[in-house]
Amino acid sequence: MSWNRRHVLSLADFSPAEYDTVLQTASSFREVLTRRTKKVPTLQGQVVANLFFEPSTRTRSSFELAAKRLSADTLNFAASTSSITKGETILDTAKTYLAMGTDMMVIRHKEAGVPQAIADEMDRLNVKVGVLNAGDGQHEHPSQALLDLFTICSLIDVEKPRSTLLKDKKIAIVGDILHSRVARSNIWSLTASGAEVHLAAPPTLLPKEFAEFVNESDPAISRKLFVHWTLEPALIDADFVMTLRLQKERMTSYLLPSLREYHQQFGITRDRLKLCKPEVRVLHPGPVNRGVEISSDLMDDPVLSLISQQVTSGVAVRMALLYLMGGGKVS
Amino acid sequence: MSWNRRHVLSLADFSPAEYDTVLQTASSFREVLTRRTKKVPTLQGQVVANLFFEPSTRTRSSFELAAKRLSADTLNFAASTSSITKGETILDTAKTYLAMGTDMMVIRHKEAGVPQAIADEMDRLNVKVGVLNAGDGQHEHPSQALLDLFTICSLIDVEKPRSTLLKDKKIAIVGDILHSRVARSNIWSLTASGAEVHLAAPPTLLPKEFAEFVNESDPAISRKLFVHWTLEPALIDADFVMTLRLQKERMTSYLLPSLREYHQQFGITRDRLKLCKPEVRVLHPGPVNRGVEISSDLMDDPVLSLISQQVTSGVAVRMALLYLMGGGKVS
Amino acid sequence: MSWNRRHVLSLADFSPAEYDTVLQTASSFREVLTRRTKKVPTLQGQVVANLFFEPSTRTRSSFELAAKRLSADTLNFAASTSSITKGETILDTAKTYLAMGTDMMVIRHKEAGVPQAIADEMDRLNVKVGVLNAGDGQHEHPSQALLDLFTICSLIDVEKPRSTLLKDKKIAIVGDILHSRVARSNIWSLTASGAEVHLAAPPTLLPKEFAEFVNESDPAISRKLFVHWTLEPALIDADFVMTLRLQKERMTSYLLPSLREYHQQFGITRDRLKLCKPEVRVLHPGPVNRGVEISSDLMDDPVLSLISQQVTSGVAVRMALLYLMGGGKVS
Repeated sequence: MSWNRRHVLSLADFSPAEYDTVLQTASSFREVLTRRTKKVPTLQGQVVANLFFEPSTRTRSSFELAAKRLSADTLNFAASTSSITKGETILDTAKTYLAMGTDMMVIRHKEAGVPQAIADEMDRLNVKVGVLNAGDGQHEHPSQALLDLFTICSLIDVEKPRSTLLKDKKIAIVGDILHSRVARSNIWSLTASGAEVHLAAPPTLLPKEFAEFVNESDPAISRKLFVHWTLEPALIDADFVMTLRLQKERMTSYLLPSLREYHQQFGITRDRLKLCKPEVRVLHPGPVNRGVEISSDLMDDPVLSLISQQVTSGVAVRMALLYLMGGGKVS
Repeated sequence: MSWNRRHVLSLADFSPAEYDTVLQTASSFREVLTRRTKKVPTLQGQVVANLFFEPSTRTRSSFELAAKRLSADTLNFAASTSSITKGETILDTAKTYLAMGTDMMVIRHKEAGVPQAIADEMDRLNVKVGVLNAGDGQHEHPSQALLDLFTICSLIDVEKPRSTLLKDKKIAIVGDILHSRVARSNIWSLTASGAEVHLAAPPTLLPKEFAEFVNESDPAISRKLFVHWTLEPALIDADFVMTLRLQKERMTSYLLPSLREYHQQFGITRDRLKLCKPEVRVLHPGPVNRGVEISSDLMDDPVLSLISQQVTSGVAVRMALLYLMGGGKVS
Repeated sequence: MSWNRRHVLSLADFSPAEYDTVLQTASSFREVLTRRTKKVPTLQGQVVANLFFEPSTRTRSSFELAAKRLSADTLNFAASTSSITKGETILDTAKTYLAMGTDMMVIRHKEAGVPQAIADEMDRLNVKVGVLNAGDGQHEHPSQALLDLFTICSLIDVEKPRSTLLKDKKIAIVGDILHSRVARSNIWSLTASGAEVHLAAPPTLLPKEFAEFVNESDPAISRKLFVHWTLEPALIDADFVMTLRLQKERMTSYLLPSLREYHQQFGITRDRLKLCKPEVRVLHPGPVNRGVEISSDLMDDPVLSLISQQVTSGVAVRMALLYLMGGGKVS
């Protein structure tokens, strides 16, 4: 077990040992979630503040439940009813929650870098408060990528999920790569685990510069990351296919012709999965636009679709992250 | 004790034994609520998700408190800040909460049938998650009718509230019957308990077809249900009078002349109660428009008005329902 | 220890013994907050309802955390999603929460007198429910003034904070006095503790009548309260400087020329503090408009600024108030 982080902000510098620590810890919490009393006293008396400057019910509920199952108290902050509208800065809001006695902060913000800025401020103040990035702009969403990793690795070896299981697996990520923090975090975790990652999207949602940027930043990744402007080459012999949510507002900004045409070119269907390995599985971070990025019947397929396992994994992985950041011992 | 339901969606097919099981269980929880520590560990470690697609503070707080007093953890979902606005279907939202590990779902929606559809989906998936209808469109609001029943029966016999106590009692339901899910659920529970139910409203809020529909659907009810377009015949010798909230938006849709005229014709006042039995009592599901459906002084009368007992009953009855649906044992 | 109140609505009639009881109790809870498990079972099984008819994340979170750390269950009511919009009166909303089994109510409302009216109604009904004013219009915000008092007294004697420590201290309150409930509550607590209070603001925000009104109401206060229309005389030899939040909407109502000009005349800066005692400290109730009522660097000064101590004090003082109102014993 290797863990030395106070904050979880990005997966860009996660080591294989850290991925495995998260996977193993999540695995032990998954066992807790099968009990009738799905609770452990690990964070009893500690406070987890969910500071969601951008609204999100799904992710906020998942973190709230993870915190409650560790017996923490939770505070929910929603920007709409807050002092932000009164001109207070984001750092001042975070410092107010710090001064109240918050032990960990889960931050979502529509601008990239806000969780990092808050974490830097906590470090500068020399307080032992952990900051977890729950999605910042188009930058990263590390807990989503970690729950995807946990879902995939658990499918391969439920007893001992570990990142080396992904070595040489082919994983297709399909959809609005350009605007997706989920894709960015997954690129880090999947390539670090030894998988081949194939991105597929229309050029408006996957500019050439995107792949170049990633490739130039890290030669180890460049050998693992491939860009396609059509779906087929990404799907051929793929072990896993991740579809991404298509923000409908992309239509109005002329990045896409129509939802129907998008589905015809990049929507994942049972038929198209025949290009993949026979045991292929499909993931989606949710919420899903049925019939756009994935066909409705495929989404509901209890074997092919891992979507509901992803949600379940989310609670276990977030328990693991809060637990590790809190410096506890698994009981 | 008779209980065999996973879901509570409608009272249309509730048996007398089931009504009595709810009444007895609520009675034992009422005792818990008189203690200084108003809590039992029955649902420790379980999760109750309040999925309120239609806003409601009162009912949501009542369910939240009932769940907390059974030591459950609660998740609150409010449609306004949710993925619903992102195009996710209601069933997908429910399945997301299922996958997170929710044990029971309390659903409110402005359209009739949504809780039933979610319950059907849970059964199809073969998961043991109970669904409770907290109000669906103009269809039903079973927990409200059950708390009304508990309030009335407890007044007659506080030690042993049971549905047979209502045999041959005359109960008037006055107001906007047409649009009221509360009235619909009460018609089922009160007639099944042997009471005579007299509906009174202007014809725009109580069309002839309404009574015909109910009567045709069940001959046993037809002998127990009476329709009046004036107030007086409903009040004469009544044992209990239930007034309903008048949605002010009915005015603008030309169903009513004015609030003042409505009050003159159908508002419940001390004076009008002289037509009833001497020991008559008044109920209202709240929130109340004072001076419209009920006079302000009558609402505040500590003897004649049962309004605050209804709210108190609500917590005990909802504890009973969550407890029974959870398959627990009363400790 | 002297405590005989069910409600905390105003500091106008607080006795020195009561101030000291709050300070001592808060001091013992501060010790709890330094433990890893920051929780005591004092209010286990009791319900604290936060009825915030006016939105506030900061104060609501502080009360919610205080209640949770006393092991109470909390119910949060936000006016925006409530029956208030359905025409229910405020007293009826409060009575609904009473009937559900609420033990204490924390009330914020944009109109002065609402918490008092609710408390009066609770007393009339002869129920043992405590009401705490969390800010009513421009009237009072007693828990804020008590946390300011606790912060100041703890700085002077951390072991034994008591109100006599303020005897003959000079305290400047600077800013929008006219519209400030924080200033009003602080005037009561600080003058009662024997401090000299110097108010400083432009005449539009501090009319002559304001001081006259206070002075006429209580001769003991009149000898302790001074009014200045410029900053300098208030700051000279001050021990503490409280700046108040400037509501930006005051600009549009022609009470102020510009934020820049306000800052030049009444903004607190390091430079201006040279007029004060060498060991001067600055307070602000938050949220802060950086660069308006206080300079940004002064706000962040870890020695001169007590702003984050105020937030921390808030949780301890609110725990103390809920504890005392609940009639408990410190364990």
